[in-house]
Amino acid sequence: MFGKIRKLLVGKSLRNKELKNQKFDVFWGLPILASDAISSVAYAGEEILYVLVPVIALGAYMQMVYVSLAIVILLCILVFSYRQTIDTYPNGGGSYIVAHDNLGTVPGLMAGAALSIDYVLTVAVSACAGTAAITSAIPSLLVHRVTLTLFFIFVLAIGNLRGIKDSSKMFGTPTYIFIVSMIIMIIYGIFKVKVLGFVPTELVQAPEATGELTAFLLLRAFAAGCTALTGVEAVSNGIPNFRKPAQENAKAVLVALTVIVLIIFSGTSYLSTLYHALPNPNQTVIAQIAIQVFGDSGMYYFMQLTTAIILIMAANTAFNDFPLLLSLLAKDGYVPRQFAQRGGRLNYSNGIDFLALAAGGLVVFFDGETHLLLPLYAVGVFASFTLSQTGMWRHWFKKKTPGWQHKALVNGVGAAVTFVTVIIIGVTKFMSGAWIVCLLIPIFIYIMLRIKAHYNIVSRQLNLPLAELAFELLDHEGKTNHVIVPLASLNKASLKALMYAKDISNNKNVIAFHVAMNEDFAKELREKWDTFNLGIPLVIYSSPYRETVKPLLEFIAKQEYAAKLDDTITIVLPEVIVNKKWTNILHNQTSYFMREKLIHDPRIAIITVPFQLKH
Amino acid sequence: MFGKIRKLLVGKSLRNKELKNQKFDVFWGLPILASDAISSVAYAGEEILYVLVPVIALGAYMQMVYVSLAIVILLCILVFSYRQTIDTYPNGGGSYIVAHDNLGTVPGLMAGAALSIDYVLTVAVSACAGTAAITSAIPSLLVHRVTLTLFFIFVLAIGNLRGIKDSSKMFGTPTYIFIVSMIIMIIYGIFKVKVLGFVPTELVQAPEATGELTAFLLLRAFAAGCTALTGVEAVSNGIPNFRKPAQENAKAVLVALTVIVLIIFSGTSYLSTLYHALPNPNQTVIAQIAIQVFGDSGMYYFMQLTTAIILIMAANTAFNDFPLLLSLLAKDGYVPRQFAQRGGRLNYSNGIDFLALAAGGLVVFFDGETHLLLPLYAVGVFASFTLSQTGMWRHWFKKKTPGWQHKALVNGVGAAVTFVTVIIIGVTKFMSGAWIVCLLIPIFIYIMLRIKAHYNIVSRQLNLPLAELAFELLDHEGKTNHVIVPLASLNKASLKALMYAKDISNNKNVIAFHVAMNEDFAKELREKWDTFNLGIPLVIYSSPYRETVKPLLEFIAKQEYAAKLDDTITIVLPEVIVNKKWTNILHNQTSYFMREKLIHDPRIAIITVPFQLKH
Repeated sequence: MFGKIRKLLVGKSLRNKELKNQKFDVFWGLPILASDAISSVAYAGEEILYVLVPVIALGAYMQMVYVSLAIVILLCILVFSYRQTIDTYPNGGGSYIVAHDNLGTVPGLMAGAALSIDYVLTVAVSACAGTAAITSAIPSLLVHRVTLTLFFIFVLAIGNLRGIKDSSKMFGTPTYIFIVSMIIMIIYGIFKVKVLGFVPTELVQAPEATGELTAFLLLRAFAAGCTALTGVEAVSNGIPNFRKPAQENAKAVLVALTVIVLIIFSGTSYLSTLYHALPNPNQTVIAQIAIQVFGDSGMYYFMQLTTAIILIMAANTAFNDFPLLLSLLAKDGYVPRQFAQRGGRLNYSNGIDFLALAAGGLVVFFDGETHLLLPLYAVGVFASFTLSQTGMWRHWFKKKTPGWQHKALVNGVGAAVTFVTVIIIGVTKFMSGAWIVCLLIPIFIYIMLRIKAHYNIVSRQLNLPLAELAFELLDHEGKTNHVIVPLASLNKASLKALMYAKDISNNKNVIAFHVAMNEDFAKELREKWDTFNLGIPLVIYSSPYRETVKPLLEFIAKQEYAAKLDDTITIVLPEVIVNKKWTNILHNQTSYFMREKLIHDPRIAIITVPFQLKH
Repeated sequence: MFGKIRKLLVGKSLRNKELKNQKFDVFWGLPILASDAISSVAYAGEEILYVLVPVIALGAYMQMVYVSLAIVILLCILVFSYRQTIDTYPNGGGSYIVAHDNLGTVPGLMAGAALSIDYVLTVAVSACAGTAAITSAIPSLLVHRVTLTLFFIFVLAIGNLRGIKDSSKMFGTPTYIFIVSMIIMIIYGIFKVKVLGFVPTELVQAPEATGELTAFLLLRAFAAGCTALTGVEAVSNGIPNFRKPAQENAKAVLVALTVIVLIIFSGTSYLSTLYHALPNPNQTVIAQIAIQVFGDSGMYYFMQLTTAIILIMAANTAFNDFPLLLSLLAKDGYVPRQFAQRGGRLNYSNGIDFLALAAGGLVVFFDGETHLLLPLYAVGVFASFTLSQTGMWRHWFKKKTPGWQHKALVNGVGAAVTFVTVIIIGVTKFMSGAWIVCLLIPIFIYIMLRIKAHYNIVSRQLNLPLAELAFELLDHEGKTNHVIVPLASLNKASLKALMYAKDISNNKNVIAFHVAMNEDFAKELREKWDTFNLGIPLVIYSSPYRETVKPLLEFIAKQEYAAKLDDTITIVLPEVIVNKKWTNILHNQTSYFMREKLIHDPRIAIITVPFQLKH
């Protein structure tokens, strides 16, 4: 039932071979991996103004240009650094791999844990922000904001479960629409003021300056704007999702991403100076610009709608990248192995499900309030950038391939800059929530190490080298198989089980076992048994507490062989198979409960022998 | 975990032998089986006034005496009738048994269905009414009324799960407190007016008469007051729960019950005339009397509290009687057999759980509103009374034991009177909800007949008479057992399964089966297999859609023996048993999923061979 609904929503299964058709090219890869970065343009400039305006009033515009410039430079440094990572790691060079390879296990897991936290937060924050954009247009939906946010996460999960190719068109199109409409707004906005001579009216009263420009203030503004850069990691980690030549395609996407962010970010920063847009809880900066550029027209509402969509789409980067990261961690044994399996549609469906559930849980827990989640955000990404760049820097020192000094310099600068950034973000946001991330990362590392240790123990104990084979075979040789058939009455189903028990044991060591719930019935059974004379002894135990499994375990414990841990005890359970599912509730499911209780005894092999009813 | 909490609340298991210690005597049997009847005194008089006062104003007091008299006479007729039933059915003479025995299957099931509906309604209505009594005293609890009602049902279920003896004291004590305080109120109330010369003030303005006294009005008042009589059925059905001499004890309880209801019902009717109490949504009739008799003192609040408790306790009659009725239906195969099993504390715990869940569901569905449920009430009880009395009447005609004419007359009068009553209740309440009951009863009868048919089919197909034994044994003789060991890799766990497979098949017809998820890994496995040379062929199937079970089923379908439906196919599944429960999520549970998918194929016997990990 559940499986059918899922298939309907997600689509039919795909063959392994179809994997290469499912990969994306530059054109569709760009919006998928860059939607997070591009969408943050919708609020990064505003975040900077939010920090600056209350303190230095209209002086903020000038400083905003410097801060934006710093962020753009940071982006360029990252792109140069990551181009080298992509060249070095053709199968995907996410922070986890690079740090794990070059710096060791714990730094690798630190990058993995930091990124995981950030991806889950990305989904929760983006979906909440998208909902907020909608509810500020339609306030009557405000009471349903949690349901609405969960619905968006559900839609994203379904889209991603449908598979890479389907989701790239589904999610790529709105990103392109957003990019195009932003560029139209920037060009027409500048044209309107500079050529048509439009004089913007101040929509919001500028506040009085309350303080002086300090370095800390600028750093806070910088940290606030830094959320724009998660997309870079996603491209580098996502190389295996690209069509061939994957590395070239990934690098092309990285460059295209930078150019687009550069144009839109600096364009909107300039427009907010031109149009005197000021942060205001009732109307976003982008909305203030748009309404002056386009008037109260359809184009204004269209801009608002695409902004809402792109905010929700931003979560899509995480849906693409996080399952990939989990699959890498799973292949190395640090998270449950199920995350490394491709689902029916060839994507890592367990990772997608997990991400949707975790983000949905956060949304419910924080009641859809973005401002509680935002301070936790971005620390993780920059921590993993730092680890990844440090890893690359180390890599060049170890390898010393031609031209390594230059490459080490590029990654070294990247590492230094991102390290400074993570310190800035960590310090400015520590008290308001970054401490949670600092607490969670070591906990996650500990859990991942425990999981790895478990897998190691299992594989060591299961490992069977040729040298040990003879010994193992000898060990099995000496074992006797004791067969017990628990039965409630002597009927055709139990007879089939008894005959089966005789077959598999060569008619040796078989006994039938009955738990007497009713003394009269047990007496009748004994009489019938004697008449039928099947050549199998029947043991009857009474059950004063009306238990079914306990008497059987007591019986086993009393046998001679109970002390010999090497013997096998086989329990043969008759199981009546009904035709109509509803009739299952009419049967006691004794065999099911018996199995559940006996399965944990390592000496006991359990057999269910089916008896099919005809109607 | 869940099991532990349940044990803590419910108490440790009891031995079968302790059953007789768990039965109740007259003193504790009375409050348990009569709490429903006695508690309805708290509202039956008021219900009558509710119907009469708006039409005939103060004339209602006079008519109320007649209506009450009619109900008391009805009660006496029922008691006489049921004393004969108790004599005739020493093992319990509930309507279901009597109607089933004497009138046939469908009338029996009709009585069973009608009573079942009424018991579930009793619990829901009583718990809601008790909550309403509390929330009218503490209005701030009104928003939590559903939670509160569910909590009361939960407490009742736990008390009843603890067992008959424990619950009789727990639930019997408040009933006695209520009876005693009502009698004190009646005596002191009459004394205060007649001897001390107290002149009651009218608390509520008497309304103008708006119509005339009609026969239909009197019948509606009668129907409204009839809810008081469900306890009679409970005593008769509950004979097996009494200590010996069970029949004598049951009859004694029946008489005591009648006397108590008679005193309290007529006493409060008289008091409401003396004190001019009038129905009023803000204060119950009993409360109006109590505040005038005792003043605004502690005794008044104590009366209110005991009334609230007795209303909730009324549900307890259903908790005692419904599981017993279900167990009888289950023994006859009309409802799932699990209802006939005694739980750890020797009561029919499945029936108690079911009643709590069904009543809780009704409470949630109707949002704790009693007035939506009340019209559905009482039709069921009187329908089953009629069927039971008709059954008894028929019984005497068939048996013709000495003095049968007199006994047939008593039961015949009972049948006629209750039949008239059910018509009155049905007609006066039909549109406001009784139609739901009329619809549900045939549906329930149909379901019960389907269940019985299923059990018949099963037992016919499983039945193994001695005459068929030789044929069955011969049939088993010709069957071959094909053994397949699905494995993910060649390790110690799968080796154990392979050796086990060889043992049970005498080394014939065993094959190992691998589903190739990864071509390279499959190649490695093949090489390792050839080196190890275990004497078992390995079949490798590829799985383009990454399925695990489908390729195995395809393989089986391609074999020669697939056409021969008689052969057995044994699937031997290696199962790694971990020590720590949390590590279970780290494993794929493939064997669990395989089992779930293969269990429905009647040719396939499934074996799980455990391999215990050491840490």
